[in-house]
Amino acid sequence: MFIGFSEAELFLRNCEDAVIITHRNPDGDCIGAGFGLKDILAQLGIRSRVICHDGFPARYSFLTSEGAGEEFEPKTIIAVDIADENLMGDYKDIYGDKVQLCIDHHISNKNYAEKTLLRSDATAACEIIYDLAQYMGVKITRHCAMCLYTGISTDSGCFKYDCTTPRAHEIAAEMMRSYDINFARINRYMFDVKSLGRLKLEAMVNELMEYCLGGRLAIAAVTQDMMKDMGVSMEELEGFAPLTIQLENTEVGILMREREDGVFKCSFRSANDVNVSAICQSIGGGGHAKAAGCTIDGPLEEAKKHLIAAVERALS
Amino acid sequence: MFIGFSEAELFLRNCEDAVIITHRNPDGDCIGAGFGLKDILAQLGIRSRVICHDGFPARYSFLTSEGAGEEFEPKTIIAVDIADENLMGDYKDIYGDKVQLCIDHHISNKNYAEKTLLRSDATAACEIIYDLAQYMGVKITRHCAMCLYTGISTDSGCFKYDCTTPRAHEIAAEMMRSYDINFARINRYMFDVKSLGRLKLEAMVNELMEYCLGGRLAIAAVTQDMMKDMGVSMEELEGFAPLTIQLENTEVGILMREREDGVFKCSFRSANDVNVSAICQSIGGGGHAKAAGCTIDGPLEEAKKHLIAAVERALS
Repeated sequence: MFIGFSEAELFLRNCEDAVIITHRNPDGDCIGAGFGLKDILAQLGIRSRVICHDGFPARYSFLTSEGAGEEFEPKTIIAVDIADENLMGDYKDIYGDKVQLCIDHHISNKNYAEKTLLRSDATAACEIIYDLAQYMGVKITRHCAMCLYTGISTDSGCFKYDCTTPRAHEIAAEMMRSYDINFARINRYMFDVKSLGRLKLEAMVNELMEYCLGGRLAIAAVTQDMMKDMGVSMEELEGFAPLTIQLENTEVGILMREREDGVFKCSFRSANDVNVSAICQSIGGGGHAKAAGCTIDGPLEEAKKHLIAAVERALS
Repeated sequence: MFIGFSEAELFLRNCEDAVIITHRNPDGDCIGAGFGLKDILAQLGIRSRVICHDGFPARYSFLTSEGAGEEFEPKTIIAVDIADENLMGDYKDIYGDKVQLCIDHHISNKNYAEKTLLRSDATAACEIIYDLAQYMGVKITRHCAMCLYTGISTDSGCFKYDCTTPRAHEIAAEMMRSYDINFARINRYMFDVKSLGRLKLEAMVNELMEYCLGGRLAIAAVTQDMMKDMGVSMEELEGFAPLTIQLENTEVGILMREREDGVFKCSFRSANDVNVSAICQSIGGGGHAKAAGCTIDGPLEEAKKHLIAAVERALS
């Protein structure tokens, strides 16, 4: 059932002992939303714990270092930024059909939760949570502001992409004025700082980039072997997908990353008007119009052919 | 003489036949400010022309394609985003000591104009011009909004850097709500789209990057020969400097670009707290605390030693 702010407020004010589930391969938005919501619940005197199938990457430690919350038997199950219970990883079996409140901004949300606060026009789940806190009259902490800013900034590519709303800018302005957050440092760590290994990997990926369909599709694949050779982990390759749409006439870009099990995690990006969410849905994935994803089994060359064919169908 | 908005309004409402000077090696802010101010003057029934020592790069044609203005004998001389008349190139001799109004945001402004509207806390000259238009009650055009957004976005690294003000975010929100500007496309062209040559050059520059002073300084030099080999022009290397501070422990980054006359144009970036404007001033340049520049004569290795020594002094 889709709900609005008043029902979400009622739910949050009356819940207790909440686990807040974030999605697999966690990014700035689900981590920011999880830890931001945890702060807000704490303001209401409600304890909570943020959980994730995967660990929280080290580069988010400025948000997570105070801890994800104590152990307790949960009475409330909340999901943030999760469009589909399959994105919960191992937590799907435990909590997948028990989510009482989902706060999300993905238009592809499967409505799997009892109540879903969905605003598909929001830049990020963090934008919704900020507005909800304002609606509830909860004065957020500086740490919460940093969490929510991080989610908005990372999901919008630092206010660069189409999904950026005027509201996202207004919230950023309010956070800068009221909480004196060190946004430049956050953005530096989210967008600019790289390991020497990643720098070299980027150079290599650019070198490897293949241009298909008359240059309208760019595709790059990073295999486990390459990651091992370069000493780089999958998580360090997050935020890499935009590299695929750097060339002026590229319409669709795909970054393939091989998981340890040989399955390729594919991140799609659209430079202009092609809806890559629709392409990904046609092969079992999903996401946003300009940024979507899917997984596909190897071997690499066959997987690539399959992806190229799917993009070709969408472009024709 | 430094002036405020009321005096700037009085000046603009009463001027006629204005040339608007932008700085050498024009960037998004001076081009946006020049063409944005031209639009505002047109709203007031005042004709103007935007001039620059160098041509306006092709990637700004979405702002400049309507033309820089007709030829006429100027009665008013305005400079935008120019801290020092030496940045005017050949126009310095003609107009350097005749500038009646300068609108600028550089703290290093030399106060060379008759009247200077300086707001050194503004993200960009375009932020000042937007606020001035609001102050004057001039309803800007969509083209003007695109000009001013471009200046704010490019000077702030798309709202990423320290110099981004809350006001910059508020203005972006207002422009998105009121003018439906295609900000994502602007940002794509300003930040993401590259030529294949540039992609390869980046890979090469990353490969060439030298780390000095225990990794606290990164320095990369692009020579005329390299540009010729890669088929890339100096203007295509604009926006390259942030590459120098990608590594986590780098404090200062320097990108050296060799001009055709053998002189190196050096762009400094500071990752955190080092004031690179002070370093550049010590060797005849200037700029902002986090982004500054200077020129230095070759040969390359001697120039490099000189720069490294200057940074070492600042770091010690």
